[in-house]
Amino acid sequence: MPGTYGQSTCGQSMTRAAVGVESVGNPLQVGLLGLGVVGSGLVRVLQENGEIIGNRLGVGLEIRRALVRSLDKPRMVSLPEERLTTNPRDILEDPDIDIIVEVMGGVEPAREYILAALGRGRPVVTANKAVLAQHGPELFRAACEHRAGLYFEASVAAGIPVIRSIVDGLAANQVQTLMGIINGTTNYILTRMVEDGTDFSVALEQAQAAGYAEADPSSDVDGWDAAYKLAILASLAFETYIPVESIHVEGIRRVTPVDIAYSRDLGFTIKLLAVAKNVNGSIEARVHPTLVPQHHPLAAVRDVFNAIFISADAVGELMFYGRGAGSLPTASAVAADLIEAADDLLRGQLPLLVRRNPGEWPVKPVQPITETRTRFYIRLSVCDEPGVLAAMAASFGRNGVSIESVIQKSRGKSPVDVVFVTHDAREADVRQALREIEPLAAVHQVASVIRVEDGTAGDKCESGGSARG
Amino acid sequence: MPGTYGQSTCGQSMTRAAVGVESVGNPLQVGLLGLGVVGSGLVRVLQENGEIIGNRLGVGLEIRRALVRSLDKPRMVSLPEERLTTNPRDILEDPDIDIIVEVMGGVEPAREYILAALGRGRPVVTANKAVLAQHGPELFRAACEHRAGLYFEASVAAGIPVIRSIVDGLAANQVQTLMGIINGTTNYILTRMVEDGTDFSVALEQAQAAGYAEADPSSDVDGWDAAYKLAILASLAFETYIPVESIHVEGIRRVTPVDIAYSRDLGFTIKLLAVAKNVNGSIEARVHPTLVPQHHPLAAVRDVFNAIFISADAVGELMFYGRGAGSLPTASAVAADLIEAADDLLRGQLPLLVRRNPGEWPVKPVQPITETRTRFYIRLSVCDEPGVLAAMAASFGRNGVSIESVIQKSRGKSPVDVVFVTHDAREADVRQALREIEPLAAVHQVASVIRVEDGTAGDKCESGGSARG
Repeated sequence: MPGTYGQSTCGQSMTRAAVGVESVGNPLQVGLLGLGVVGSGLVRVLQENGEIIGNRLGVGLEIRRALVRSLDKPRMVSLPEERLTTNPRDILEDPDIDIIVEVMGGVEPAREYILAALGRGRPVVTANKAVLAQHGPELFRAACEHRAGLYFEASVAAGIPVIRSIVDGLAANQVQTLMGIINGTTNYILTRMVEDGTDFSVALEQAQAAGYAEADPSSDVDGWDAAYKLAILASLAFETYIPVESIHVEGIRRVTPVDIAYSRDLGFTIKLLAVAKNVNGSIEARVHPTLVPQHHPLAAVRDVFNAIFISADAVGELMFYGRGAGSLPTASAVAADLIEAADDLLRGQLPLLVRRNPGEWPVKPVQPITETRTRFYIRLSVCDEPGVLAAMAASFGRNGVSIESVIQKSRGKSPVDVVFVTHDAREADVRQALREIEPLAAVHQVASVIRVEDGTAGDKCESGGSARG
Repeated sequence: MPGTYGQSTCGQSMTRAAVGVESVGNPLQVGLLGLGVVGSGLVRVLQENGEIIGNRLGVGLEIRRALVRSLDKPRMVSLPEERLTTNPRDILEDPDIDIIVEVMGGVEPAREYILAALGRGRPVVTANKAVLAQHGPELFRAACEHRAGLYFEASVAAGIPVIRSIVDGLAANQVQTLMGIINGTTNYILTRMVEDGTDFSVALEQAQAAGYAEADPSSDVDGWDAAYKLAILASLAFETYIPVESIHVEGIRRVTPVDIAYSRDLGFTIKLLAVAKNVNGSIEARVHPTLVPQHHPLAAVRDVFNAIFISADAVGELMFYGRGAGSLPTASAVAADLIEAADDLLRGQLPLLVRRNPGEWPVKPVQPITETRTRFYIRLSVCDEPGVLAAMAASFGRNGVSIESVIQKSRGKSPVDVVFVTHDAREADVRQALREIEPLAAVHQVASVIRVEDGTAGDKCESGGSARG
């Protein structure tokens, strides 16, 4: 509907002409790379809320062309047939297209197309975690060089506005800790295991039946999906580039109902957390099953929901919660970026983040996992005989690992479980203690080692000043 | 430290000269109206993170002058004495001041000063909920008319970036429901009552002893502080102006341990919620004690923490959590706005929200509380005799109020409590039913009527499409 949107009521002079957008009032033209789950969601959002968006932005948004793999496939949304193409050049080289939206996923050819669009000065909105995590610096450098906006809110946690919150909302803060439940599939599986007592394989089947897990679930359950997202979040939070390969990644396949039961007795629940910390200038980045205190706000994040908990020096603790995947939730973030990209384009502006050129941010080395300090939950299977507890405790002590609590439940059978929770300890020291403990005659097995994160939520008040109101 | 901050590495041409800012590289000059809890926090944030902020923004920020009530008062932060003034004109009329930050609180003279600053084309950052809730349209019109930015993230929920999330992050959505725990004092009191079983007056004393409640706590415990904040959030979410006077407000003074105990048995916890909904174009806006299902993410928000839960058509359910008050958390939001204001100023831009001129948004009438539909928790004190339950149930039925569950615990004494939870019902119908029930001979008292909100969290999946990942 060209011309139906009012101009911003106190708008500055529009610079459309200056950026090659000809006629004020005509909708901006969007080139869509990909028309799968997210692309279809975007089409639906623009169809249903297009008028509202046009009124907010002062100009409409129109999908001029969409790149698809096959013209014959049945689609969830209706786009006129002539707007579909299988040739990316019909979009990338169309001078009438103002903004490119990349929702294909995968590294190639998405990277090539994004670079081509930026190279022609076209702003790009992308939902692609893989290409950003692996080629972020290259993309940012291209955006900066060609003065084209790059927008990627949808690449992490779908419609939860966590990226703009870190970049803009926390602009005056130094982020200390970021802990995220950023994979909905594993959170669904762990919720089933915790609430229903099922084991991993049953819960995985339930997730698959509910459409929350792929037939091949490894990218989710082995932690790699979360690692990509953590790489993006941590790079922004700590103003560096964290390669995915530098992140320590463990999945949830080895989480057992036994450990869930013990951890509940100890006041914890279990989550796959993506954790990044800045500890005195040294960066930690890791993805692993984690015990979280039952009172921590992350513990209440159930089913497929995502949440990102952030601790920063001025603001204290924050958490952002919502759906981390899905057609419309992801399209919500893509469309918000599209609105920002359109507004920037019309005014000839670039986002501050792009102007800061993250492609040139200094590399900050990620600490090896052996050097990180956390609390640990450790379950050992031992013979129920005198002296074994003392021997194990002595090994921990020798290695500087201080024990916070122990559970030993003798149920009249041998071997029995002994569960330790440590105070903060260096991982290398814990490993060394366990290397000494494992060969003890009475020790059958080190059954589980799970890290514990407290965060700093609850009633601690570290932020100073009055908290009235 | 003039000149020490690098320019943005791929910056567009700076337009400082065009907006009267003389020398590139020199810090922008900030005029601070108020040096109390929030103002001192801002000074501290700029002292501690000033270099980082300068690097992010490409230019430093310097507090040139701060308005104080008395020059002699001891201060929490150190500013050179010559930078303090008791004369607002020293700040409002200083041509070298680029940006005004208003953190005085209260309606007057804050309103007058903000209008004066905007009238001179100066961008204003404010943390003032009262002036925005009561005079928002006038301030926005002034900002629009004089093309000066107006930034107010800190006016609601301190450092939680909820305002920019609604305005920017949800720009492609229609918000349906907004439910907030936006008063930390009352959340602390209710947390103590729920977790420790104390009654209101004891919990209030604890809150006062902890510094979370004022000597005169009425603005917090009677719900007015939350109502001001709700007026701001709901006005933005629904693109209108919601006057505080149109909001139905009930405080927490009448919440009792008895009702907390029953609601726990029924699977709820109790929160002071600020609720705004768009029900088919009709706006609801209300603040009252509310039963929230224990599994709802708002139920896990404890102590002085705040959270805003939003349901919107594309993104589904979102929640933003953090500290809603305090010196540094509030200063975090003020400083983030200051960074945005500085960046806009340097580029001669206005935020999209100001260009949309909320001062001219159409008024949408708020529905009278009697017309709203919610579930209700109703506790009646009755004689334990045959027929009374049937008589009460008949009254509900006659008025179209459908009962979801009943608890009657006969403890061998009379009167006994009967607790009803209704399905969704029109409030006027519930009131009429209670007017019929109250005079019944066996009914001693309608002891409590508390609204119930479900939200739509948990494992419902209304958002369509795959939720993988």
